Amino acid sequence: MKKKVFFQGEHGAFSEEAAFNYFGKSITTIPCKTFEEVFQAVRKKDSTFGVIPIENSLAGSLHINYDLLLTYKLKIIGEINIRISHQLLGLKKTNIQNIKRIYSHPMALQQCQKFLKSLTSVELIETYDTAGSVMMLKGTGSKETAAIASNSAAKIYGVNILQKNIEDYKQNYTRFLILSKKAGGVIKDPAKTSIVFSLKNEPGILFKSLSGFALRGIDLTKIESRPVREKPFEYYFYLDFIGSTKELGIKNALNSLREITDDIRILGSYKIFRK
Amino acid sequence: MKKKVFFQGEHGAFSEEAAFNYFGKSITTIPCKTFEEVFQAVRKKDSTFGVIPIENSLAGSLHINYDLLLTYKLKIIGEINIRISHQLLGLKKTNIQNIKRIYSHPMALQQCQKFLKSLTSVELIETYDTAGSVMMLKGTGSKETAAIASNSAAKIYGVNILQKNIEDYKQNYTRFLILSKKAGGVIKDPAKTSIVFSLKNEPGILFKSLSGFALRGIDLTKIESRPVREKPFEYYFYLDFIGSTKELGIKNALNSLREITDDIRILGSYKIFRK
Repeated sequence: MKKKVFFQGEHGAFSEEAAFNYFGKSITTIPCKTFEEVFQAVRKKDSTFGVIPIENSLAGSLHINYDLLLTYKLKIIGEINIRISHQLLGLKKTNIQNIKRIYSHPMALQQCQKFLKSLTSVELIETYDTAGSVMMLKGTGSKETAAIASNSAAKIYGVNILQKNIEDYKQNYTRFLILSKKAGGVIKDPAKTSIVFSLKNEPGILFKSLSGFALRGIDLTKIESRPVREKPFEYYFYLDFIGSTKELGIKNALNSLREITDDIRILGSYKIFRK
Repeated sequence: MKKKVFFQGEHGAFSEEAAFNYFGKSITTIPCKTFEEVFQAVRKKDSTFGVIPIENSLAGSLHINYDLLLTYKLKIIGEINIRISHQLLGLKKTNIQNIKRIYSHPMALQQCQKFLKSLTSVELIETYDTAGSVMMLKGTGSKETAAIASNSAAKIYGVNILQKNIEDYKQNYTRFLILSKKAGGVIKDPAKTSIVFSLKNEPGILFKSLSGFALRGIDLTKIESRPVREKPFEYYFYLDFIGSTKELGIKNALNSLREITDDIRILGSYKIFRK
């Protein structure tokens, strides 16, 4: 039976592209309207997977997904980076000069600001998904409407590319996480581990919490803070570092951290994505 | 002459409330459509001020404003916290049961999810500002429309409060920063300092960068990372800590940090807000 992989958005979304790149083509991809629906679907059934964006190299972290990682107790079993390239799409015979409105996801609109500023009196309409905005474009049947989405969305929905690669910065990558109910197996390749912990508010405590990692030369690749809802201006820290929880040095570093806080969760150890 | 203070949103916005709480009532408050317009206005003229939200205790940091702090070289001269309380507002004779659509800022809609889920088949329409959504409500003249905004917006625009304090969590605070072209004067009270720096990507470097502060018992109150646009998955770190740049210990800690990175900027030392 084909693997079931849930993603947010419509067919042709960047998350679906990430799923195909990670698992290969012979999977069943299932669109969800929200990120939370992805988490709910994966939690419901063993041996299903979810693919969620966690960080974009221009816009930064997707905090909603950091928060959902805390709420739903899923495991991170992998990661993959996708180069994000945006296309201006329209129906046949659409002329860029005549476009009056453009549909896309807020992040895509934000990433194409230079191009969009070159158009005059165009209304920007935010949608929940880039691929979904192509469906809306088709629904309008209008030659005064365009959408911003991926190459694969253009193919899937059979619309024209009016202008190629309209993103402001070419160094535009999104990192996606692969989620499942159960942790992945043993990782032979260089591994990465993601954890989350909360700290009491006292001088030097963040420094102390990092010391067990620094003393062992463990490479931190990401630190992210999110508010603790019940305690204004206290934070959860999400840490990514190189190494797997099977390694002795990592185990010891985590034990040092447990001396400082007992509110710590391992989100998963997984194979590092290398280009 | 009255002080000129720029803020994002319409009169009655939470940012305007923060401005009045910080400066007192005898100021001229000037609405701007975007946060960037606030930065532009303050940069243009000496002795004008800007008030921007930087962090909400539930939703986390406003990254756009962290990024604008880096782009525009303004100084932080103060901070203030405001308790955020949301009201469901409508025109006279509006019945909650008959409401078909609700206007508000995305963050306000997100903060009232429990209440909004209790309503059936209501369309949520995102606006650029809570107070602006009350103006839109008045524009519709409709008894099937409502807006979510502050008490002061209800007063200013003379609309009715249909339901009080509909926010999910009562521990809902937003921290605002006060900006100006020139740094504030000498701070006698306990002070806070904000800085931003970038780090090369190497093991232990974040730990090292924090060590000068930890060794001196300097209390870090916030750490926030933002992507460096030109270098995928490298980061700027924004740090808030207790103390002013006039203090010797702080000076030495900053000098230690300069040994690790020469890309460091002092955003400002300012008086800590205490409730």
